[in-house]
Amino acid sequence: MRTLRLTLEYDGSAYVGWQRQAEGVSIQGLLEDALAPFEGAPVTVHGAGRTDAGVHALGQVASVTLRHAAHDAPTLQRALNAVLPDDVRVVGLVEAAPGFHARFDATGKTYEYRIVNAPYLSAFAFRHAWHVPGPLDRAAMRDGASALVGRHDFAAFQATGGEVATTVRTISAIAFDESPAAGVADGSLVLRVSGDGFLRHMVRAIAGTLVDVGLGRWPAAHVGTILESRDRAAAGRAAPPHGLFLVRVHYE
Amino acid sequence: MRTLRLTLEYDGSAYVGWQRQAEGVSIQGLLEDALAPFEGAPVTVHGAGRTDAGVHALGQVASVTLRHAAHDAPTLQRALNAVLPDDVRVVGLVEAAPGFHARFDATGKTYEYRIVNAPYLSAFAFRHAWHVPGPLDRAAMRDGASALVGRHDFAAFQATGGEVATTVRTISAIAFDESPAAGVADGSLVLRVSGDGFLRHMVRAIAGTLVDVGLGRWPAAHVGTILESRDRAAAGRAAPPHGLFLVRVHYE
Repeated sequence: MRTLRLTLEYDGSAYVGWQRQAEGVSIQGLLEDALAPFEGAPVTVHGAGRTDAGVHALGQVASVTLRHAAHDAPTLQRALNAVLPDDVRVVGLVEAAPGFHARFDATGKTYEYRIVNAPYLSAFAFRHAWHVPGPLDRAAMRDGASALVGRHDFAAFQATGGEVATTVRTISAIAFDESPAAGVADGSLVLRVSGDGFLRHMVRAIAGTLVDVGLGRWPAAHVGTILESRDRAAAGRAAPPHGLFLVRVHYE
Repeated sequence: MRTLRLTLEYDGSAYVGWQRQAEGVSIQGLLEDALAPFEGAPVTVHGAGRTDAGVHALGQVASVTLRHAAHDAPTLQRALNAVLPDDVRVVGLVEAAPGFHARFDATGKTYEYRIVNAPYLSAFAFRHAWHVPGPLDRAAMRDGASALVGRHDFAAFQATGGEVATTVRTISAIAFDESPAAGVADGSLVLRVSGDGFLRHMVRAIAGTLVDVGLGRWPAAHVGTILESRDRAAAGRAAPPHGLFLVRVHYE
């Protein structure tokens, strides 16, 4: 028996999300189906982050325990990349400690939310950024973001209907990177958020709320008020999924 | 009567190429169909480069003469971007001198051919680069490329069946840019070629031949021999269309 740790990059545009669903193609399903022939049996792949439909990953981490497949790690990585679609890549595959679990062992994650604030969105960026053409007050957005750092109850920033034991999370860092990111045109604004865990739609609700601040719908100080309200209806609209990237999963 | 000059960016993945065809969606057709309602009549759009199916553009130039449409240039640009698909963008639209013709007035063009020389191709780059996993001798590729600079008969580097008055063209510059280009992962190698005109498939035949040199199938000096042969069968395979970008069209 061996446990593997996979690092994955994917363009989520064509998929129903990480998690296997009754209908549609999921990243988890693609990986499980690609691994099963090596194992000679069905396998279960655990992902660190259950990215939603349309959300991308640059550094998703997954774990899988195999009993039969004897292929070495580089061979398995090459074989998976040969059978997976071009928009899903295994960028790392290594032997992990026995019992390693990509989700339960994760101590944190970093997400990026990519915005393009320009009159038009590049023909090459529209699947991977949210187009916000109006003028944005970036200083106000930075001010608003700073209210979110630390340990807080983020109930106001979760998807409605979310059922989790606690909505308290810690954001360790939140910042805007205004240098043009790979594949993102001039005017790009990348929100980078790191924390110990994220509620469903949390980064998208934060990005949407900060854009509302940037557009002048709310003053920066209102972000703290929304947080304190613990009321989803108080926050701004969730930003669309296609601007969101799971960048990195943190482990001890 | 007025003539407009449009600068266009497009992802060619979904299209049959620049030119209107009996079947399939072309960039020319999209633009003509988008402009016709403003003119109240069919219009003809002339493109500087007739990019093939799957080929992209960062700076295609097109011209159109309108008799009726009175909208100012910024309004027309916004309106076109509102109706065109997301993978075709009008990045510039200005009034041109009467009689301006995007193709006949062009004095040269610059193309890029993007190669990714790495074990795998990014999930975000596969539509926009040719994946060449084998080790490449980059110095040999540069040597080979240098043989092509200047005024030559490029018959060996045109699509078979091409019918043009002359196959003599001048390449004014050809170079590899090895810095990671926007949207292209590590290991990227961008061939940039400028010239007064290009035969059909010429840049792709050059890119394919130089990759054959890089892979050691031919010595660098063989590129000059191929050029002198004027024989298409002598050159390497044409590189696939999805690595090719029309970057800029030059005018006096």
